[in-house]
Amino acid sequence: MISAVLLGAGNVATHLYKAFKNAETITVVQWYNRTIETLSDYANEIAITDNLAELKEADIYIMAVSDDSIAKLSQKLPFENRLVAHTSGSVSMHDLDKKNQIAVFYPLQTFSKDAEIDFTEVPICIEVYQKQNLQLLKDLAKAAGCKSHKITTEQRQTLHLAAVFANNFTNQLYRIAHEICESKNIEFEILKPLIIETAKKIEEMSPYMAQTGPAKRNDKKTIKRHLKLIENEKHKAIYELLTASIKKTHGKR
Amino acid sequence: MISAVLLGAGNVATHLYKAFKNAETITVVQWYNRTIETLSDYANEIAITDNLAELKEADIYIMAVSDDSIAKLSQKLPFENRLVAHTSGSVSMHDLDKKNQIAVFYPLQTFSKDAEIDFTEVPICIEVYQKQNLQLLKDLAKAAGCKSHKITTEQRQTLHLAAVFANNFTNQLYRIAHEICESKNIEFEILKPLIIETAKKIEEMSPYMAQTGPAKRNDKKTIKRHLKLIENEKHKAIYELLTASIKKTHGKR
Repeated sequence: MISAVLLGAGNVATHLYKAFKNAETITVVQWYNRTIETLSDYANEIAITDNLAELKEADIYIMAVSDDSIAKLSQKLPFENRLVAHTSGSVSMHDLDKKNQIAVFYPLQTFSKDAEIDFTEVPICIEVYQKQNLQLLKDLAKAAGCKSHKITTEQRQTLHLAAVFANNFTNQLYRIAHEICESKNIEFEILKPLIIETAKKIEEMSPYMAQTGPAKRNDKKTIKRHLKLIENEKHKAIYELLTASIKKTHGKR
Repeated sequence: MISAVLLGAGNVATHLYKAFKNAETITVVQWYNRTIETLSDYANEIAITDNLAELKEADIYIMAVSDDSIAKLSQKLPFENRLVAHTSGSVSMHDLDKKNQIAVFYPLQTFSKDAEIDFTEVPICIEVYQKQNLQLLKDLAKAAGCKSHKITTEQRQTLHLAAVFANNFTNQLYRIAHEICESKNIEFEILKPLIIETAKKIEEMSPYMAQTGPAKRNDKKTIKRHLKLIENEKHKAIYELLTASIKKTHGKR
């Protein structure tokens, strides 16, 4: 049995709490947040606190707080030589105060409060400073039903960058497609099966192999027609840049 | 029962053939292609031909050929006043020779030869010149298990443009994420659950609501760190343009 204390009450903390609650070999012994009201919905099922001095003993303290709060909060912890992990994709492990043993437990997924997630599908990226803690972090991920990957700081920060392309930027392209549809009274719904299929396709083949469309074919007539059709200058710039990127990838000029 | 002749042997034609073959109320009476060898795998199950003069009578002739071939092939058809539809997202219906009745039957999906598709998930965009043919095209889509949408030429061409953003450009972002991972020996696999979740999320909420990440938060520190981390100048330009686009959408400067 692994005992854990959760710190923070944002999307990642909430999803971690739910995943850990359902795991047979993890006990969340306490949940801390700066403002206790945010945790009041959970007061009946778990010990909650807003007082760091009251933190209970546990195998691991998981800090799922904003990037900017990690260093300060780790300094304020009123104990030493225990295991403390943050969950950020981009903050260095060494931002954690070294009076404790330090680690990273980074769930690579997009978390929104309102979107339910199958947590067993979330890959956990693990980093440890003290080698002896690797197994505990792996066990923690496994107990939550997740695959884990031991990676370096540089790899984690690179993954976080790649995730911005694959998630935030992709979602912005959906947003632009949505705007383009609305401008001509087309239901955005019609595009959703295509969006799902685009994501599913790369389960089976590389994005390189999966590519189709006018840029890959270097179909100048269609590209020209599209550029004429785009009313928003910013969308036009994105169309041109990504078309050039696809052409370069597929050896077209 | 609707009888159909298919023309063309590319990805769309092949997926249409498979969908129609499984439909109880559609009979594909013949399959034409310029080079008959491409169709030889199907010779045992369907009448194939490479001779336009031999085309059989049918309720509808579906031309799933390349955009550039549509006009010419429609002129060469050796009959008049029958119903002819093309399947392109961007070619005007009026490129079809008006000696026949004309229409568009555009399946909005990304088709690759090797990727199996649940055709019942494909929305069919329908356009007709002669109103009396609308019902037949709707029935055809329904018999194949698909939802259909009656749209105008302008709407279809706009949808095709939106699909380039939601499919081709999105896939190129996957490709860039793949390249970024490879540059630091990270398995691209780790990103796949995130990619699927990004697509699934907008089933439940708008892309606007689904957005997260440093650009939306206007997290300048992370954005700066990412820009420093990107080695490829072209990727950097895409990062900057899409970050600016997200900031604008979410009212950040």
